[in-house]
Amino acid sequence: MSEHFLLFDVGGTDIKAGLANTNGDILQVLREPTRKTAPEESAAELVTQLGEISRRLTAESGTTPVSAGLAVCGLVDPENGIGIFSANLGWRDAPLQAMARETLGVPVGFGHDVAMAARAELELGSGAKDAALRRNAVVMVIGTGIANALMVDGRLISAGGYAGELGHAQVPGGLPCACGATGCLETLGSAGAIAKRYLAATGKRGGAREVFAARAAGDQVAAGIIHDAIEALTFTMAQLCSSVAPEGIVLGGGLAQAGPSFFAELRESLHRRLSFHREPRLIPAHLGADAGLQGAMILAGDAAGRSARIAL
Amino acid sequence: MSEHFLLFDVGGTDIKAGLANTNGDILQVLREPTRKTAPEESAAELVTQLGEISRRLTAESGTTPVSAGLAVCGLVDPENGIGIFSANLGWRDAPLQAMARETLGVPVGFGHDVAMAARAELELGSGAKDAALRRNAVVMVIGTGIANALMVDGRLISAGGYAGELGHAQVPGGLPCACGATGCLETLGSAGAIAKRYLAATGKRGGAREVFAARAAGDQVAAGIIHDAIEALTFTMAQLCSSVAPEGIVLGGGLAQAGPSFFAELRESLHRRLSFHREPRLIPAHLGADAGLQGAMILAGDAAGRSARIAL
Repeated sequence: MSEHFLLFDVGGTDIKAGLANTNGDILQVLREPTRKTAPEESAAELVTQLGEISRRLTAESGTTPVSAGLAVCGLVDPENGIGIFSANLGWRDAPLQAMARETLGVPVGFGHDVAMAARAELELGSGAKDAALRRNAVVMVIGTGIANALMVDGRLISAGGYAGELGHAQVPGGLPCACGATGCLETLGSAGAIAKRYLAATGKRGGAREVFAARAAGDQVAAGIIHDAIEALTFTMAQLCSSVAPEGIVLGGGLAQAGPSFFAELRESLHRRLSFHREPRLIPAHLGADAGLQGAMILAGDAAGRSARIAL
Repeated sequence: MSEHFLLFDVGGTDIKAGLANTNGDILQVLREPTRKTAPEESAAELVTQLGEISRRLTAESGTTPVSAGLAVCGLVDPENGIGIFSANLGWRDAPLQAMARETLGVPVGFGHDVAMAARAELELGSGAKDAALRRNAVVMVIGTGIANALMVDGRLISAGGYAGELGHAQVPGGLPCACGATGCLETLGSAGAIAKRYLAATGKRGGAREVFAARAAGDQVAAGIIHDAIEALTFTMAQLCSSVAPEGIVLGGGLAQAGPSFFAELRESLHRRLSFHREPRLIPAHLGADAGLQGAMILAGDAAGRSARIAL
């Protein structure tokens, strides 16, 4: 019987789970809503749910996993296996790695969902043939919010789980944010902000995609909102050029699919903000929605004491 | 005859030089203005000046140095011994380590002035008894310009020499900068900017110290300029909280000596900008003006193939 890895990518809305062989082929994937409970029960409930998913996946395939990879959202302390805080799910200082190990009965590799998706992107996606990206890069996933991972001098930085919260960095003209601060990048530069501001200005519902379509059709309100988003994003990117100086910024999430003209506009705006700084390449992410599972695969391989190679 | 290290801390305004024994006792210190020449001659002129200082120091003490530590300002590639760019002094891609080795006739350890002063500060100064600072901290030296070092997850980050150029990060309201960009922190938040803006507004010459004194005496122009500096500095600090999340920000240089009320104002302004972020402690640097020389001592020890211990 061949060996298999269990993969879990736990987001605030959904859990994506999978079973993979040790060649890195993902054989099965399932997705179900992350169960919501009282905050103090959220960690136990999550691990119960992971156990149920595990039994379902292994019963269907008739395999026994050798290890699991568990990537979770929120503030994470990967070194100590702790979920520090999840605003969406509620746990605080939960020893998720040890709890999952007990329930699943196999070694569990544990990490942050975005950091691990970024590691997969940089090791297996856009960075696979690009050593400069694997040394110094920023991965920005621009969707409802903006999630980020910073690779600096060849290491994903953590700062106790607080690194890479660029969605909540101040930008000029930024608006009051749900986090309690004012001026956060997410209030102008996210796909969610573009849709929300367009709705507020015009009464028209839709996603960022519809706002881009409206701009293409000559809508000046849409053009202004997209302009603000681009300026906000490149303001933050320029800040990164002055602090961690990435060689490339890899853009994923819904907004990164707004097309080549969006990337050209970002590049032009970023260029204007820089002088002697190292100007990063702006690169669309290669890995799609499975980047989180592929990150969990890296964790599972680490836990099993081997390097997982993922078939792309 | 005992062994000695030559120490050089080359700033845009002054060169500080010293002679130390291998126990880390700094025996002699001298300071003189960094000579200004045409940019294309600046590297050769610097090394000539270092040679003259070396002869003076060694003639006075009658010793022969075993190695030198050379810490220089600007963009630095310490791995390859290159001064990439100095806005103040003018060189570009100058092989300063090799040039200094040839002129001084001893092995030369080479690094960035601020990175090395920061390393000394975090290993021997404020971080000596503070493990959190030695893991995640930012050191900002606020003088004529603003120079910085970022300690992230226990490592000083480099990004090929481009990391930590926070003086050239954009801030709201920032002015055109000598670097060619517009809005750099240095144009509002440095001691140099405070003095220069006060001179332009009032015709009164002096340093930042005099502007603080004028504010204390009720001068509203001085108050406005200092307010702008504080807001610009905490804007950049808040950006760092969203990217590398330091546990402390250590402030050195002339402006850090503006006194406790300056620190209280910075803390209050920074606090206002943050929400869930980890709020860093703002800490005055313990090492004084000699931090750069102590950093050069670490370099000289490295070049001599031994660990220099510095007497504090």
